[in-house]
Amino acid sequence: MSASTRDPQVITCKAAVAWGPGEALVLEEVEVDPPKPMEIRIKVVCTSLCRSDITQWESKAHTLLFPRIFGHEASGIVESIGEGVTDFKEGDHVLTLFTGECMTCKHCTSGKSNMCQVLGLERRGVMHSDQKTRFSIKGKPIYHYCAVSSFSEYTVVHSGCAVKICPSAPLEKICLLSCGVAAGLGAAWNVANISEGSNVVIFGLGTVGLSVAQGAKLRGASRIIGVDTNPEKYKKGKAFGITEFINPADCNEPVQEVIKRITDGGADYSFECIGDTGMITTALQSCCDGWGMTVTLGVPKVKPEITAHYALLLSGRTLRGSLFGGWKPKSDLPSLVDMYLKNEIQIDEFITHNLQFEEINEAFNLMREGKCLRCVIHVTK
Amino acid sequence: MSASTRDPQVITCKAAVAWGPGEALVLEEVEVDPPKPMEIRIKVVCTSLCRSDITQWESKAHTLLFPRIFGHEASGIVESIGEGVTDFKEGDHVLTLFTGECMTCKHCTSGKSNMCQVLGLERRGVMHSDQKTRFSIKGKPIYHYCAVSSFSEYTVVHSGCAVKICPSAPLEKICLLSCGVAAGLGAAWNVANISEGSNVVIFGLGTVGLSVAQGAKLRGASRIIGVDTNPEKYKKGKAFGITEFINPADCNEPVQEVIKRITDGGADYSFECIGDTGMITTALQSCCDGWGMTVTLGVPKVKPEITAHYALLLSGRTLRGSLFGGWKPKSDLPSLVDMYLKNEIQIDEFITHNLQFEEINEAFNLMREGKCLRCVIHVTK
Repeated sequence: MSASTRDPQVITCKAAVAWGPGEALVLEEVEVDPPKPMEIRIKVVCTSLCRSDITQWESKAHTLLFPRIFGHEASGIVESIGEGVTDFKEGDHVLTLFTGECMTCKHCTSGKSNMCQVLGLERRGVMHSDQKTRFSIKGKPIYHYCAVSSFSEYTVVHSGCAVKICPSAPLEKICLLSCGVAAGLGAAWNVANISEGSNVVIFGLGTVGLSVAQGAKLRGASRIIGVDTNPEKYKKGKAFGITEFINPADCNEPVQEVIKRITDGGADYSFECIGDTGMITTALQSCCDGWGMTVTLGVPKVKPEITAHYALLLSGRTLRGSLFGGWKPKSDLPSLVDMYLKNEIQIDEFITHNLQFEEINEAFNLMREGKCLRCVIHVTK
Repeated sequence: MSASTRDPQVITCKAAVAWGPGEALVLEEVEVDPPKPMEIRIKVVCTSLCRSDITQWESKAHTLLFPRIFGHEASGIVESIGEGVTDFKEGDHVLTLFTGECMTCKHCTSGKSNMCQVLGLERRGVMHSDQKTRFSIKGKPIYHYCAVSSFSEYTVVHSGCAVKICPSAPLEKICLLSCGVAAGLGAAWNVANISEGSNVVIFGLGTVGLSVAQGAKLRGASRIIGVDTNPEKYKKGKAFGITEFINPADCNEPVQEVIKRITDGGADYSFECIGDTGMITTALQSCCDGWGMTVTLGVPKVKPEITAHYALLLSGRTLRGSLFGGWKPKSDLPSLVDMYLKNEIQIDEFITHNLQFEEINEAFNLMREGKCLRCVIHVTK
């Protein structure tokens, strides 16, 4: 591996390459191009594994784009900058952004959307600017993931797909704000706008669901009901504000009926944090007439169609979705980092495992088996 | 017909009875019981025909409850009051409420719901209080509709299912506020909360859709795009604020693609006012990423399940439903009547036909053929 910052050259480094859907990643030597105009090259310090990486890696309901480098929840240090980049310099500490912010499009300037029209969620495995990759192995292009691809010692991202953060923030912790923890907090605060004293039900107590719980707790919700088929999640959930736990496997009636009964008609807010469109229907059924709101955060693993009986809506429910909890990633993430530094939000408690880069497949196994919340993978020193 | 107000007796009067699904109504002599405690008996002056009456009369996707007296959008005069009623007296002018307001339940006191738990939408064809009917023919009970049943010279309703209005308001006009016009205005104002300068698309330009248009116009929307397969609706729609008209039959591409193109990505708000769950999907596709909101108002005639690709939600859309435009019926309707009296809202322009009670089947024909907006049926003098 070599890196010259004055006139950036191709870097050869290690990356965990997925050669096919569901196939174990292989640590390969890859070539990483220099950053093109408005891009930066980042030395990835830590990346955590998010459920969406696995969903896309399995590609059960998605276009097959392989070989590919996954990873989109990461922290790092700017190694070199491309022409025209003014908001980063070498050595800056950054978080990567799986959905970017150009600051100039209709959505970025609207004040009410984080769906950047220029640097929004990239689904074709290439860079936004030229529809090409910056990774290759012996000349063969390797697809990106969400224009981030943090399962590599070095990666190239658009300067609008990274945000500079306080250099004193621990990179091995705050990488979680790059996706899961921020998404959950934002869903609770920006999307649902949970009010004090309300009751909340959360389907799926992974990192996203427990971040919603944390957000609800900080807003003063009275009851935070967690639903998960894994009984281990209750204990963990208590640390984030879960006040009651329901394991659907232990119920003699549909879980929505249990929730409606114990909340006198349904919760004020319900959150689908699993990535199961059938569970979105259950979540809608679990919130109350009149003002009940269901927020959907998950990326479905299989069936992409949501179905709901019209009467659920007609009786006054709202169904809202959000990407990244409604945060404008570049504008808003630094303040979340600051909140962490002031101990106003918890991150450390989500980290159940720290793994070396060589152990990345173990992280996949742990998550698929439901044995972790977040595995932080230490990519470089 | 006879009516003694001191000690109310059974009234025998004319009512338009539906004997079976889709069968022409028959004017029959029916017995109308005296009002029970907390009920009032009303002399119906005018009733307008709403699309929901036809949907339920056809009963293609609903439980068969026949014989039945339909009608739920009506004005009248209190004929007698039951024990305990304090907010009405004989001679009061009233509008009927197809969804009532008890003023004391969790929803009525919430300040954020009109889904009264005591007097909400009645679906079993009986009175809320005792699950019985107040109509009969030679002892055979006749089912109610929405606990209103205004296709009768006299009807009995719970006192929470009627609202006293200004006696100078013309009963032959303001009956439209009892359902359709209020529902549309409320969807625009209370549910969507349309902001000035926004663009709006409305699917279905019947009375409800055009009332949404009126509400959007009064909020200062810049563009109000009407979608209807009936080309006649454009001319009528202009009077209520429609600025552009799309007939899907004239398009070479799906209507949502046309809307996305002409609005640079989709409308700010879309409204489904047809009662077609497939069109709810189209409406969701027609509003923009980030902040697009779809409001569903219609009661589906057939398929009750809404389907939507999860990505429509994940990209920041909101799907909301409302009954009666979110208005608290008893609390809010008098102010809409006052707005009409001050010429702040239009009602007269919706009335395309005035018919005698004997001509009620003609109103059904006109609406099924799309040849009317509202037919006002003059039930009694």
